[in-house]
Amino acid sequence: MTLYMKVAQEFEGQIRTGALQPGERLPSVRSLSRNRKISASTVLQAYMTLEARGLIEARPQSGYYACATRAAVCTPLKMPDLGIKHGPVKTPDIIANMRKAGRDSGFFQLGCAHMDSQLYPVKRLSRLLAKAARENPEHIGQMDFPPGNIRLRRQIARRYSELGCSATADDIILTSGCNEALMLALRAGTKAGDTVLVESPTYFNALEVIHSLGLKTVEVPSDPATGLDLGAVREAFERFPIRAGVVIPNFGNPTGALMPDENKRELVKIFKEHQAWLIEDDIFGELPFSQKRPKPLRFFDSKGVVITCSSFSKTVGPGLRVGWIFPAGLHDEIESAKYLLNGGVPLITTELVADFLESGSYERYLRGVRQELATQVARISEAILRAFPEGTEISRPQGGFVVWVKLPKGLSSVDLYRKAVDAKINISPGVIFSASGRFENYIRISCGSWSDAIARAISKLGGLLK
Amino acid sequence: MTLYMKVAQEFEGQIRTGALQPGERLPSVRSLSRNRKISASTVLQAYMTLEARGLIEARPQSGYYACATRAAVCTPLKMPDLGIKHGPVKTPDIIANMRKAGRDSGFFQLGCAHMDSQLYPVKRLSRLLAKAARENPEHIGQMDFPPGNIRLRRQIARRYSELGCSATADDIILTSGCNEALMLALRAGTKAGDTVLVESPTYFNALEVIHSLGLKTVEVPSDPATGLDLGAVREAFERFPIRAGVVIPNFGNPTGALMPDENKRELVKIFKEHQAWLIEDDIFGELPFSQKRPKPLRFFDSKGVVITCSSFSKTVGPGLRVGWIFPAGLHDEIESAKYLLNGGVPLITTELVADFLESGSYERYLRGVRQELATQVARISEAILRAFPEGTEISRPQGGFVVWVKLPKGLSSVDLYRKAVDAKINISPGVIFSASGRFENYIRISCGSWSDAIARAISKLGGLLK
Repeated sequence: MTLYMKVAQEFEGQIRTGALQPGERLPSVRSLSRNRKISASTVLQAYMTLEARGLIEARPQSGYYACATRAAVCTPLKMPDLGIKHGPVKTPDIIANMRKAGRDSGFFQLGCAHMDSQLYPVKRLSRLLAKAARENPEHIGQMDFPPGNIRLRRQIARRYSELGCSATADDIILTSGCNEALMLALRAGTKAGDTVLVESPTYFNALEVIHSLGLKTVEVPSDPATGLDLGAVREAFERFPIRAGVVIPNFGNPTGALMPDENKRELVKIFKEHQAWLIEDDIFGELPFSQKRPKPLRFFDSKGVVITCSSFSKTVGPGLRVGWIFPAGLHDEIESAKYLLNGGVPLITTELVADFLESGSYERYLRGVRQELATQVARISEAILRAFPEGTEISRPQGGFVVWVKLPKGLSSVDLYRKAVDAKINISPGVIFSASGRFENYIRISCGSWSDAIARAISKLGGLLK
Repeated sequence: MTLYMKVAQEFEGQIRTGALQPGERLPSVRSLSRNRKISASTVLQAYMTLEARGLIEARPQSGYYACATRAAVCTPLKMPDLGIKHGPVKTPDIIANMRKAGRDSGFFQLGCAHMDSQLYPVKRLSRLLAKAARENPEHIGQMDFPPGNIRLRRQIARRYSELGCSATADDIILTSGCNEALMLALRAGTKAGDTVLVESPTYFNALEVIHSLGLKTVEVPSDPATGLDLGAVREAFERFPIRAGVVIPNFGNPTGALMPDENKRELVKIFKEHQAWLIEDDIFGELPFSQKRPKPLRFFDSKGVVITCSSFSKTVGPGLRVGWIFPAGLHDEIESAKYLLNGGVPLITTELVADFLESGSYERYLRGVRQELATQVARISEAILRAFPEGTEISRPQGGFVVWVKLPKGLSSVDLYRKAVDAKINISPGVIFSASGRFENYIRISCGSWSDAIARAISKLGGLLK
């Protein structure tokens, strides 16, 4: 990437994240050139690039000013109140097909929530891995029983402590990704036939895990900006014998919703009152566009009802399969279950992540990737609003990298999904985010990658809808 | 290791494996010195070492001759006919304690079936890993969905083909170890409440998995030399509604039994007749002392009733957590279940094993480690027969690295286990190898390590029994 592109990207990030507000003035060409020790023509080229993208405008005799972007000024997505729904989970066949397409490199991947491999810290990891291979060959195939690598558990516990959660390495059990953690939590906290509270919409993998364990769900409305509707949560507890809940409090999937702190506190209180396990999936928590890491539900829990599940799949690397669980009162059951399931997490992978965290590279890396994702989410949001029919609405996430798109009434996301597959574009139709087939006119779009080809794929989707 | 020690070890291996039979003559000092281009004094030192260990004897004017070793001539272990037993699985608390001690480096590890880390090919793996890190950094955190790494699946399929089993890469699904494969097979092939046929005795992890899935067992007697009693298998099928069986045909755990080919063929036939899934755990199949790799049950299956589970944990490295499943008619169910469970196996680990196999190092490595294990099993067997009370019997495995020890009547392995824990020695008491608490006077000893300290630990065990 050339210098002017870097400068342009930096300001784009500031505009996307709101650090530079619409109407605010950018530094003058001369002052930026002097401060950064770069040529005036480089600055000018950067500003012209941003102008061409509609992100800034030149005002004669005055300078360059940040514009309001389309995604930032559109009406945010509002969902109708669908109420509470209780029953077994329907898992549509579409999920298997979506996964198959997700493995096919011939597809544009707007379906699965994975980031462009370029965004992961691969160079740094490769140096650390080569060093570890040379210096600690005996670790390569060495068994590492649950709870797993003490160095990594210390790093994870330290990060919780910095967030104000009381945690030691002994509280953490390493898992092969977040989904395994979720499965272990549900297996330990419920038995077949029990009812689990879920957000509506929510992550389809969680619904499938719930289904595979023979559990039922209560779907409770979740707002695309603020998450779970607490009045509806209270109502659900009054009407149904809820044993546990699965919630994504930070940058929910598929909406990107962020629960306000007071709602988190209240939610923990409700679960505590009803003695139900509150299982939180905090996998996107490290990816706030504002750089201010939101609190996990665990922060508001003093009684041990919250079980926190997370992983490094959305940050260090999805294929490492390094996740963890921070169980409440179920530590020993979950540790034994992890042992029995597959004996632990490979030491090669947990050592690598521990090395990365210990080196201090993780924080630096996170700061950069959050800015990148803010830009990608904004670009894809704008491309969608430009290409899709009038009346399309879109969620406005403050972190993570998925957006939830509401198609105008009468349009079917399942139809769109089928046509998109023929055009070699993979998307996630709304119905898979509900236990009961809701959200026919919604889709989730992953903003993990951005390129001209992705932009064309989004135009194509818009064409298929018209 | 000095040259004379290498020569001594080579002949020890030949004697232990039976390549050199009791009474057979070793090469003369002069001829071996000439053929190997080593000094006569080196050969002489090697022979004197073997003589001191009681493995060979010098006959005046004639040369050196192989002796019969104690473990080779003792009466092989015979078990009384305990009959068939049906019911839910009891999982004793002892297993959790055993695992805890298994993670404690202060213990002598005769309990868990892990090899000395020195026996794994760590140097070779470390070079391959450092090379892969430099050359393919983008693979490090890259997602690799089930069925997993195609290069490794090709290598696994090729090995089955060489054994005469029809197999392609598409038949194989990679798993995080053999236990996960077993769990996936049982989940796909049974439902809670079903009955599963197991060997008696059998591997305790399998019993725990069966228990965790809400299944019942029928325990069927398994001979320490030839494995499952086929008459009893037929009887079990007549008396109980068996949905599946879990069998270790090659070097069973805990006995080391090897099923003769005709028994394997017959077993597959019985399962086919009753339309039950035959799940084989072939994890020790690659470790025959004779260097002749026995056939998996799959070889005898033309109708797709056998589901083969295995892993590289007993060969390349236990901590890599790279296993696989070769399902019969349940391929798609198991692939989806693996996806849902934890998303796949880390590419770092599967690439490393694929590199190792493709390089041709695996075969060379296996030849060496089989000989080492033959020697270790014989040494530990002899140490047990020397230290334990009169009347102790021991299984005589032809591969793998566990032995099954029958204590004289009236002695309790649970008592021994408790005393051994106080002496910082970890063993596996017999009761954990039964769903119904059988085998109180048996123990399994892992022969994965050998050292003077291990020899002392075995003497100590003998002392505790007296």
